[in-house]
Amino acid sequence: MGFDPGLATLGYGVIEKGKAFKPTMIDYGVVLTPKDENLAVRLCMLEEGIRQIIAKFKPDEIAVEELFFAKNVTTGINVAHARGVLLLTAVKECGRLYEYTPLQIKQALTGYGRADKHQIQAMVKTYLNLKSIPRPDDAADALAVALCHAQTNKLGKLFSI
Amino acid sequence: MGFDPGLATLGYGVIEKGKAFKPTMIDYGVVLTPKDENLAVRLCMLEEGIRQIIAKFKPDEIAVEELFFAKNVTTGINVAHARGVLLLTAVKECGRLYEYTPLQIKQALTGYGRADKHQIQAMVKTYLNLKSIPRPDDAADALAVALCHAQTNKLGKLFSI
Repeated sequence: MGFDPGLATLGYGVIEKGKAFKPTMIDYGVVLTPKDENLAVRLCMLEEGIRQIIAKFKPDEIAVEELFFAKNVTTGINVAHARGVLLLTAVKECGRLYEYTPLQIKQALTGYGRADKHQIQAMVKTYLNLKSIPRPDDAADALAVALCHAQTNKLGKLFSI
Repeated sequence: MGFDPGLATLGYGVIEKGKAFKPTMIDYGVVLTPKDENLAVRLCMLEEGIRQIIAKFKPDEIAVEELFFAKNVTTGINVAHARGVLLLTAVKECGRLYEYTPLQIKQALTGYGRADKHQIQAMVKTYLNLKSIPRPDDAADALAVALCHAQTNKLGKLFSI
């Protein structure tokens, strides 16, 4: 299971690895929190959503993208608050959590560290044999980190308890 | 109860408001997490520590300082991860959570928005009638936000569930 952290929109993607790297898409989607709700309540909503998704799919392992700071510092702070709740909940509920840098994800999916967002999403569609690119972007990004984890044989940084 | 968010050192301070703004210090201290432990485990340790402190003192209300981005972006990301866990745990365990900006805290304690860290800590000592300035700084800062909340009659931004 992959997660793309975010406060307003947190993406998740579930795949089954299969043999000889023939991964199958099981599900993908997002947890949404309303912009006009206060931060603490939004964090509670994220925690509840993450718990429910993990309880539903019972993943063997969870992969999360490492956070790099965007141009917008306010957005970055919000994402980091949300990511703290994501890491806490994921490691408590699953126990095996891996972290990948954006560069690792790009290289795993395209063999090319400077691939753009659209190229990554196109590879998600191809690898998972989907009819179209998953929407919204946050869900496609979550599938990308799940695929990166499956393909690199757990090369990411392991967080476990 | 006031909290000063941090990943390596999270400060807390407990006061009783009393009548006519004669606050009393009940306790203060820090939750520490080891730098060589992984981020998810450190967040679990923070959550557990925060839970225990809230369970022990059963505060009526919790006050937390708002996050402003420091020069060091890596530290800032770590603090924001920790603060996400703090807000989640505090609002779940207590239900009434208030947020104050550094400016509000300075003004509440010294009447002066440009007071430095040492002036704030000296006022914490004076207001609480302590023999010395509480150490470490994180605990003194947590008492400062608790005092700010007591003194301003809950002027901060309320997060409640």
